Amino acid sequence: MIYFNCDYTEGAHPSILEKLAETNMEQTIGYGMDEHCKHAAELIKKACGREDVDVHFLVGGTQTNVTVIDAALRAHQGVICAGSGHINVHETGAVEASGHKCITIPSEDGKVYEPQVREILANHFANGGDEHMAQPKMLYISNPTEWGTIYQKEELIALYELCQEYGAYLFLDGARLGYGLMCKENDLTLEDIAQYTDVFYIGGTKVGALFGEAVVISNPALKPDFRYAIKQHGGMLAKGRLLGVQFETLFTDNLYFEIAKHAMDMAERISDKLAEYGVEFTVASPTNQIFVSLPKTAITELSQKYKFEPMGTKDETHDIIRICTSWATKEENVTALLADIERVLS
Amino acid sequence: MIYFNCDYTEGAHPSILEKLAETNMEQTIGYGMDEHCKHAAELIKKACGREDVDVHFLVGGTQTNVTVIDAALRAHQGVICAGSGHINVHETGAVEASGHKCITIPSEDGKVYEPQVREILANHFANGGDEHMAQPKMLYISNPTEWGTIYQKEELIALYELCQEYGAYLFLDGARLGYGLMCKENDLTLEDIAQYTDVFYIGGTKVGALFGEAVVISNPALKPDFRYAIKQHGGMLAKGRLLGVQFETLFTDNLYFEIAKHAMDMAERISDKLAEYGVEFTVASPTNQIFVSLPKTAITELSQKYKFEPMGTKDETHDIIRICTSWATKEENVTALLADIERVLS
Amino acid sequence: MIYFNCDYTEGAHPSILEKLAETNMEQTIGYGMDEHCKHAAELIKKACGREDVDVHFLVGGTQTNVTVIDAALRAHQGVICAGSGHINVHETGAVEASGHKCITIPSEDGKVYEPQVREILANHFANGGDEHMAQPKMLYISNPTEWGTIYQKEELIALYELCQEYGAYLFLDGARLGYGLMCKENDLTLEDIAQYTDVFYIGGTKVGALFGEAVVISNPALKPDFRYAIKQHGGMLAKGRLLGVQFETLFTDNLYFEIAKHAMDMAERISDKLAEYGVEFTVASPTNQIFVSLPKTAITELSQKYKFEPMGTKDETHDIIRICTSWATKEENVTALLADIERVLS
Amino acid sequence: MIYFNCDYTEGAHPSILEKLAETNMEQTIGYGMDEHCKHAAELIKKACGREDVDVHFLVGGTQTNVTVIDAALRAHQGVICAGSGHINVHETGAVEASGHKCITIPSEDGKVYEPQVREILANHFANGGDEHMAQPKMLYISNPTEWGTIYQKEELIALYELCQEYGAYLFLDGARLGYGLMCKENDLTLEDIAQYTDVFYIGGTKVGALFGEAVVISNPALKPDFRYAIKQHGGMLAKGRLLGVQFETLFTDNLYFEIAKHAMDMAERISDKLAEYGVEFTVASPTNQIFVSLPKTAITELSQKYKFEPMGTKDETHDIIRICTSWATKEENVTALLADIERVLS
Repeated sequence: MIYFNCDYTEGAHPSILEKLAETNMEQTIGYGMDEHCKHAAELIKKACGREDVDVHFLVGGTQTNVTVIDAALRAHQGVICAGSGHINVHETGAVEASGHKCITIPSEDGKVYEPQVREILANHFANGGDEHMAQPKMLYISNPTEWGTIYQKEELIALYELCQEYGAYLFLDGARLGYGLMCKENDLTLEDIAQYTDVFYIGGTKVGALFGEAVVISNPALKPDFRYAIKQHGGMLAKGRLLGVQFETLFTDNLYFEIAKHAMDMAERISDKLAEYGVEFTVASPTNQIFVSLPKTAITELSQKYKFEPMGTKDETHDIIRICTSWATKEENVTALLADIERVLS
Repeated sequence: MIYFNCDYTEGAHPSILEKLAETNMEQTIGYGMDEHCKHAAELIKKACGREDVDVHFLVGGTQTNVTVIDAALRAHQGVICAGSGHINVHETGAVEASGHKCITIPSEDGKVYEPQVREILANHFANGGDEHMAQPKMLYISNPTEWGTIYQKEELIALYELCQEYGAYLFLDGARLGYGLMCKENDLTLEDIAQYTDVFYIGGTKVGALFGEAVVISNPALKPDFRYAIKQHGGMLAKGRLLGVQFETLFTDNLYFEIAKHAMDMAERISDKLAEYGVEFTVASPTNQIFVSLPKTAITELSQKYKFEPMGTKDETHDIIRICTSWATKEENVTALLADIERVLS
Repeated sequence: MIYFNCDYTEGAHPSILEKLAETNMEQTIGYGMDEHCKHAAELIKKACGREDVDVHFLVGGTQTNVTVIDAALRAHQGVICAGSGHINVHETGAVEASGHKCITIPSEDGKVYEPQVREILANHFANGGDEHMAQPKMLYISNPTEWGTIYQKEELIALYELCQEYGAYLFLDGARLGYGLMCKENDLTLEDIAQYTDVFYIGGTKVGALFGEAVVISNPALKPDFRYAIKQHGGMLAKGRLLGVQFETLFTDNLYFEIAKHAMDMAERISDKLAEYGVEFTVASPTNQIFVSLPKTAITELSQKYKFEPMGTKDETHDIIRICTSWATKEENVTALLADIERVLS
Repeated sequence: MIYFNCDYTEGAHPSILEKLAETNMEQTIGYGMDEHCKHAAELIKKACGREDVDVHFLVGGTQTNVTVIDAALRAHQGVICAGSGHINVHETGAVEASGHKCITIPSEDGKVYEPQVREILANHFANGGDEHMAQPKMLYISNPTEWGTIYQKEELIALYELCQEYGAYLFLDGARLGYGLMCKENDLTLEDIAQYTDVFYIGGTKVGALFGEAVVISNPALKPDFRYAIKQHGGMLAKGRLLGVQFETLFTDNLYFEIAKHAMDMAERISDKLAEYGVEFTVASPTNQIFVSLPKTAITELSQKYKFEPMGTKDETHDIIRICTSWATKEENVTALLADIERVLS
């Protein structure tokens, strides 16, 4: 069985395993205060073109989201997000468990747009703030989104300026950031993201690491006591060096971007082939997640050899699936898949 | 200025004030363990036709909602509700602050319908339960709803049976229950509500009391330790007798229902008059809240003498307002309003 | 049976009931924005000698404590208090339920002393702040304490200056503040308390009101969005006017202080009599709560007529009881008690 | 510099790294549902002599503690623990952040004793349960404790039976369980621990793993929905296989116990040498943490070459330090340390 269902089916890029083995018996202090973490933070600051950001390393995505949100918000404040946002749908209410409401915007493509967010903020603060409602104090977006779509630079700037206008924070979830930055439609750089958000994170788990997410905080208001928040949310790894080692590997010699590029190349081959056969793309995702509706019979046949993520029913004869590539996707598996698509869809 | 904007503009029904004065210097024990609370609970059990329910008294609606929900749910469980539900919109994220997600259903009329709730439950439990999502363990409805609409008996039974099917609790918020039970379209009794919910509350604040809500718990699973929940949520009044005295007054000689009936009579007179002039009712509310769209000019003119609740803009020339009656609405004020409506709309 | 067990056995001072009856059919807006609340706030500001404080009205003590604490603290911050503090012992973990740790100091007399608090703060911030521990950001004291003891002005100033030194807030719980201010040993004024705390509250429930506590915030950092916190914690009374009316009555013509003085006079008569008989006072309380150890036989005999609060066992032959007076204590009941004490202890 | 300050200064046992490398490019499903996790769970069940326990893998200790506690307790329930307990002191209030109070017992040696716990439970439930206090529903102990001490079998049984008596859960934190089980004074087996607790965890982070803790649940009441709790608390590793691979390695060929035994041998050599010189052991720890008071001059001299954990001041001339060994402690480093101790203390 060949897995195309998600982007975390393998372990880590081999360079990371090598580096972990190489440093294994070094004695370091714990909790992310070691030299590897410091070095990794320096490399990320450099990649962001900013010396003045704070960089912290956490283990996983849900943990990172809830830590950032809970660290930023007071008890009565909520976070605006797309209805399809990961924090709203797939984190078992972790944000709410930390006390904060997700204030949702209906979304077809996973993105939120400036007028939608403006409406919420403008309504809430029309008379100084309506204390009968959770106060919208943060906007959460992901890039790429759950549906693989991305924000264009002008969209990000518009959202950021809107947040500035209302004193809200803009938080960008970059669980798949590498794939977003390396896709053809992208016009954002890491520098842009550091500039036009208050806080964001660079996902490692889905882009080459065993695990790990690097939080980058630009807004000085969000910096104090962030390590307390990490610890309280169970995200302070005793052997923090494991995160340091992984991110210093990913941000050395451009590795993070190169392996992300590979995933995009693989995705493009698959998309192109599917397009040839006039398959319907249910979302126009330019990144490593491809959402297509296929005849149920075709899915059944392909599923004997490949694992896809089922995304529900399209109509009586068609279902929707997600096909994912990643840093680990093997060329030969894509080649095999293309041949089988050809065979099955012909 | 005459207030028709909401149903809590006055103090309490005079009988309540009298009873409070009469019992004022009695010495009682605290925290709701006194004889007045016991008596009030007995009266309510009788009105519900059930000896086996637990009755508790709390101070206000938000407090009651969050106490009931938090007492019933474990940390990973959420509560299904209409998007317009009071807990979702107007409680400053209190439910989320206690750790629980509101799982929302879009709603035009404030109600939720069996197929909508079924979809959420069926999807979640399709494979035994999806641990990446908050577990839907309770259904919250209000009767009347935020939009004044009510559930018919068969609708309530359908929702209750659905909840039973999935092991979820049905909680009915009766902040305005008296008005619901006394409206013409209603076919529910207090006995029905006790039978076809797991827990509900009888609102006092909006129906004749200074303040106070009576929680009625039928489901034995929800009874243990409920007083801990009340205390922890700051709802255990030191002089609990104040709640006991109020509810024993309201449930003596049918007072609760009679004063609710008065509000309905007043509402009917207003609705009938508005209907005469072909005014558009934006929601078909059969209870004490009337939602109508009127010409902006008419609203401006009426507002010199009357206070209504603004509910937004209908179109360029029309706005929407809420007109409320209550136990305290004076006949002469309604008569005056009708005359002015006539004058302004003619 | 005559109750001396606690200070909330009766309703409210008759003036309050009169004022409630008098204003009952006034139509006002809700949630504490009415004229009575405004007026009451003005009277309290005047009594505090400060125009620049914010005044808010809440229903009960636990609710007030948790609202103030949760509004002031970020998620990782805790509150220092005496081990015997009300928030630590008798609020069913409400502070923790809102996410904050009580960092306790062992205490015999209910008070905390500057060196004890300094040790906690100095240790925590020795190296900038130890993120593995909850950050002590607030000091909670009560005056009078759970044991009836009070702070002298120089003690309060010392605690306040210590808090200032470490950027912590000083919060004074004044559930029984009237009794503290009117006791003979007291050298604090309301002005002092407003000056040497960041936030405090004036208790109504135990000092003449049906219910209600008035929060006074001096520190500008604690003022923004406080009404959101009230609402979220279920403390925003729909008919907020009830709180306004009560506090405007209490703070008119010095009523609050006069009725507190009465309780002190009654307590003094009882203490003096007990002292005559060489009874052991287990805590040296100068306020309206008297803690004494008496022979078990004496307690049994007195308990046929009077209700006291049992406070545990002293030794094989003696138990400890609390005797409370209040604004409502009747002279004739005290006279009767004194005679019975004489009879039983002779 | 040679580190003896704690037991998480190195990476992982080499066998674990090898196994991770070997399985790196396997494609597996995520979130702990893969074959490695299943296999590891089987091995642990076997080691516990129980087929009927549930086994779950989490990333770190604080996360594990808060997940277990929050999954087990309802909102008004608290957890009894030693004042020195990790959850009370060194988890930044994570348990309180999840809403639960730590109900503390003063402790000199890190342990709690049956009569202390009985007093809390008996007092609370004397009259059916005091709803003004957090309800003690769980007892948390660690074995070894923060001070390296361990529970004897009869002590554990006494605590467990007490918990049974009051319907409370017994949770054992085994962050350093391997060291406890392999120390000479120990008379407990893994089977005993599974039998006489409701839930416990086997620590990996400090005993050979890169990271990871294995939760073992025996009490059926604690099993349902535990994976929801893991996910909500950010502990569900996307590549859960990493935990599976580590624990299957540790529980193959007795590795976990052998490497723990090594740490104990190393600790014994150090203790014996220190005892030779009449050094004061401030706590009688039989496990891998040694607490001794040494002349400040000696500490200064040794600290040029070795890193110890400072534990405060003993008196004017002596400080207290912690010396730790672990699975990774090298014989030659111990030999060097012994020689230096000899030199410095002679």
